[in-house]
Amino acid sequence: MAHTTDRGGRKAGTRKRADAERNIVAIIAAATESFARDPDASMTDIAKAAGLGRVTLYAHFPSREQLLRTVLAETIAESTRIIEAASPAEGPPAEALARMIRSCWPLLSRFGSLHAAAQRALPADEVRRRHDRPMAHVERLVARGRAEGAFRTDLPVEWLVTTVYTLLHAAADEAAAGRLATEAVGEILEKTLLAALKSE
Amino acid sequence: MAHTTDRGGRKAGTRKRADAERNIVAIIAAATESFARDPDASMTDIAKAAGLGRVTLYAHFPSREQLLRTVLAETIAESTRIIEAASPAEGPPAEALARMIRSCWPLLSRFGSLHAAAQRALPADEVRRRHDRPMAHVERLVARGRAEGAFRTDLPVEWLVTTVYTLLHAAADEAAAGRLATEAVGEILEKTLLAALKSE
Repeated sequence: MAHTTDRGGRKAGTRKRADAERNIVAIIAAATESFARDPDASMTDIAKAAGLGRVTLYAHFPSREQLLRTVLAETIAESTRIIEAASPAEGPPAEALARMIRSCWPLLSRFGSLHAAAQRALPADEVRRRHDRPMAHVERLVARGRAEGAFRTDLPVEWLVTTVYTLLHAAADEAAAGRLATEAVGEILEKTLLAALKSE
Repeated sequence: MAHTTDRGGRKAGTRKRADAERNIVAIIAAATESFARDPDASMTDIAKAAGLGRVTLYAHFPSREQLLRTVLAETIAESTRIIEAASPAEGPPAEALARMIRSCWPLLSRFGSLHAAAQRALPADEVRRRHDRPMAHVERLVARGRAEGAFRTDLPVEWLVTTVYTLLHAAADEAAAGRLATEAVGEILEKTLLAALKSE
């Protein structure tokens, strides 16, 4: 008898965990889409988009900030994988930069106003620090480009990395606001950043 | 008698208006400094910095957003005057751009994290729209530079203006966070923006 109850309890536990996992996945997907469309998306908007009640949403994410942090961490991790797949350490630096921009742009574009949502709700330093992993690839590429004579050496590396970071996100904001045609942005970013970074 | 009372009333009214004006000036100065230092400065912080009570502060500015809007409008008006004093419509476009950047940078630097405060509390479109007047000077200068063959024509004018706007504010953020030396920023911005804008 004890054995059966135990098995039943374990089954119920497994089912509960599976439900929780499914809910978390649904919440993160709904939150990503909601923040991409509207930087001020509320917990109520997100619960509705996920097809869940507010109680369930708050059981998994006690605050909007915490949900935003999770969504930001997931999307930055995805961007990092895409940047790594573009092999920024290989080939001529200018070509590697162009490849990196073109590979991560569609993702940045899909995340729309998510970065703006993060900037509005989280400390500026935190938002930037969360981008440390993808930006480390940019920093290494800029350093390599300088060593190989392809990129300028008259400005601090950190500033050149900030220029890349800032213009990538500005382009995403402009496209999200309908002021830049999404399909043109990859080329626009590539031309702007190569001109800003290349050596004289 | 009626005459004397009227004069007394008028005097008291004048004094009241003078007090109110002095308070408003003190509040705007304190708020500008507070937001420059801390984008999350509260109404309590600002009242304290102005040497006034919260009741007086709220009597003049019923909300933090309204105070932030007033401070932003004042500082943007000041930046516009400085940009206009740099005569962007005169001389070779690259020199005019350099002159404009160098003239408005000290101001931008002084306003520190005010722009970040505005981005956190006000709608993104509003913050950008409030910069329409100074940015119109940048837009005209970019258009003139393109017509005269000094600036690139392969990218949309709006994007080149966004590049100037974004990097100016990014530099202010970096300097406010201590990641860029304030005294070096004028030259860094000039070099970066001229490279990004100039024709091939």
